[in-house]
Amino acid sequence: MQNNEFTVIEGGGVCSAAGFVAHGMHAGFRPQPERLDMAVVLANTLAQAAGVFTQNVFCAAPVQVSRAHLNAGPVGVNYGTARAIVINSGNANAATGATGFATAEETAQIAATCIGCEASDILVASTGVIGQQLDVTPFRQALPEAFSAASRDGGAKAARAIMTTDTHPKEFAVKFDGEDIGYPGKTFTVGGMSKGSGMIMPNMATMIAVLTTDAPVAAPDLHAALKRAVDVSFNKITVDSDTSTNDTCVALASGKACGVSADEIEAATFAPASDAFAKFERALQFVCQTLARDMARDGEGATKLVTVNVEGAATEADADAAARTVANSPLVKTAIFGHDCNWGRIAGALGRSGATFDQLSVDIDIMGLAVCRGGMTVEFSEEEALARFEDPEIVIDINLGAGTHSTTIWTCDFTHDYVTINGDYRT
Amino acid sequence: MQNNEFTVIEGGGVCSAAGFVAHGMHAGFRPQPERLDMAVVLANTLAQAAGVFTQNVFCAAPVQVSRAHLNAGPVGVNYGTARAIVINSGNANAATGATGFATAEETAQIAATCIGCEASDILVASTGVIGQQLDVTPFRQALPEAFSAASRDGGAKAARAIMTTDTHPKEFAVKFDGEDIGYPGKTFTVGGMSKGSGMIMPNMATMIAVLTTDAPVAAPDLHAALKRAVDVSFNKITVDSDTSTNDTCVALASGKACGVSADEIEAATFAPASDAFAKFERALQFVCQTLARDMARDGEGATKLVTVNVEGAATEADADAAARTVANSPLVKTAIFGHDCNWGRIAGALGRSGATFDQLSVDIDIMGLAVCRGGMTVEFSEEEALARFEDPEIVIDINLGAGTHSTTIWTCDFTHDYVTINGDYRT
Repeated sequence: MQNNEFTVIEGGGVCSAAGFVAHGMHAGFRPQPERLDMAVVLANTLAQAAGVFTQNVFCAAPVQVSRAHLNAGPVGVNYGTARAIVINSGNANAATGATGFATAEETAQIAATCIGCEASDILVASTGVIGQQLDVTPFRQALPEAFSAASRDGGAKAARAIMTTDTHPKEFAVKFDGEDIGYPGKTFTVGGMSKGSGMIMPNMATMIAVLTTDAPVAAPDLHAALKRAVDVSFNKITVDSDTSTNDTCVALASGKACGVSADEIEAATFAPASDAFAKFERALQFVCQTLARDMARDGEGATKLVTVNVEGAATEADADAAARTVANSPLVKTAIFGHDCNWGRIAGALGRSGATFDQLSVDIDIMGLAVCRGGMTVEFSEEEALARFEDPEIVIDINLGAGTHSTTIWTCDFTHDYVTINGDYRT
Repeated sequence: MQNNEFTVIEGGGVCSAAGFVAHGMHAGFRPQPERLDMAVVLANTLAQAAGVFTQNVFCAAPVQVSRAHLNAGPVGVNYGTARAIVINSGNANAATGATGFATAEETAQIAATCIGCEASDILVASTGVIGQQLDVTPFRQALPEAFSAASRDGGAKAARAIMTTDTHPKEFAVKFDGEDIGYPGKTFTVGGMSKGSGMIMPNMATMIAVLTTDAPVAAPDLHAALKRAVDVSFNKITVDSDTSTNDTCVALASGKACGVSADEIEAATFAPASDAFAKFERALQFVCQTLARDMARDGEGATKLVTVNVEGAATEADADAAARTVANSPLVKTAIFGHDCNWGRIAGALGRSGATFDQLSVDIDIMGLAVCRGGMTVEFSEEEALARFEDPEIVIDINLGAGTHSTTIWTCDFTHDYVTINGDYRT
């Protein structure tokens, strides 16, 4: 991602913003003792909080509990306050009925006792096997240690503890100056961690992202900004079209960049229409898009990050449908794996996407090479195309010639390793 | 498919019904001289005809031409009369603009000259590479021979000539007695051939099916019956979710089972609400479903035919969405390839399908084994599950517990060979 506005914090993550500590450890959800499987992110004092969750009807118990705990908004709009989020990997606590719900609630209660807060100020998230009951014992045994060990240096361990088939942890943070937005002398930070993309592991599920900021943002505004950021980042990636049962993205705002007392925070809060809020929102979007692209790049078995840009669509929904259909097409994704500049498959996907357009108005470029103009093939050098496919990021530009709407979707290629990871697991 | 009503004709196909001849040959669309690449199906006299075509906006030139030639119905309802259909493999004539349209029209004109009819009574279909102009020369050189060689024995060659990555030709025919439907002493036949499923070949596209019958059915009724049959057969299969640019399914009715003179046919025509028409429609559906299942079984790289039954859906659309989402899920399909009785992935797919239901009401059986009851796991023998996965057909039964609607979708598993066929082609 190009960016001239924000300073990227080297090694930054979920603890870069003032007011947050974290830890990751082996609690016992996974058999391998060396494998971290539980993370906590703790706000030093009560933080403003917002969440965006999976739309899947088979949504997991921790999703239901976290939604219930962020219930200050109208129905379906999830914000409020939070002190901490507890995340385990190895078991998704999904399709587990009332028992699973009780387990997730008990987890929140254990964490609340550890840090001395209301259980309703604890958020929970799980990722792993669907359809097996989650044992609450590891939480009971390990949460006291996790919270006492939590530190400003714990972000990396937390990011590692939430991994499933991810090949590397995903962390990112930026800071920006308050000078030009009415907060002279202040520096604000937005950071976060995430895992997965699609339903990542054999039997496993989930994308999880935790964003933190020390900017003073009230929960309803934080929710609005998070919703918009998610719509142009995590909601624009697809690995295998399989929306998980556990998708959870939460944002916590400590306000700590403006001081330590609650009074000071409240007085300093970014007004929703202010330049300060706009800048914060751009930073949040940048962090979310960077994490999202990293998730697509690290999709199961992937060798390429694939960016699908659609412009000239009649509506925003058409732009999304066209880009998403191309990005999900197994034929397009296997062609990219094979370094095959096969625009016919892109045309086929566009044509079945439901978007309204005239096939004779469509232009397609692959890696900057014009391959289709007016719905028909144009001469291009296959050699040049093959050379450009060496790039780790493949960019497809599509103009539907039907309007002014545009979007970008990120995905990855479809490889033998995807089938191996997801299919060979018992054979 | 179970069937007690119709007699399956051994070795039957597109020429089993009286009044039709066919041929398949190498015309030169493919480089390999031993590879058949052009088929013709010829009605001895003008037949009632109906067609159902791809909804893809990037629909191919032959689709546009065949639609235009079957224009006796209202806009978008394609029926009329036809003498023959000409099909080539090796080039889809898709994304070829006005030039491609002219080529398809010229093909019809050449065929019409060969057999002495109007060009508008010729249907055309193509399957192969998208985005390359189709050379008309092989049609000019080979169609006279194809039509003069066409015979009652030519169905097998025709079925072979339309293959792309299909591993075997797909033909089927049944007959039924007229005794109990007011046509004593008459025997009626419905047969057909088809190819592909999904976008089958590297760079290639298309499913094509040609159905023939000697039953006396008028074109509008034939269209209605075909539309309904396609909706429960070809429209219920999915290999890779990639609807092609060239999908074409046509039905031709000669009426020859009732005699040879046009008068006799007209007087004998099956009335739409009659027992005779209902029986014909069941036969047509049976033939279409048999061919469709064979296409799913022969999906690219497939090792299993997968049948997804959904019942208890709130609406027909919900039933279709639920079954289709499960059938298209790469995670479900790779799990089946891996003999993994992974119902959590099925639950995940159901949950994101858009169907309305309560997760605590969902029951799932795999190969007759109860694996999920009330949205939660039930104990089952993994050993027994593994044993049942040896079957070449995997059956998944889902009850959403939300209503009375049901459907069946057929698909195949997702394997290394799919990636090899579609991705390794240039590497």
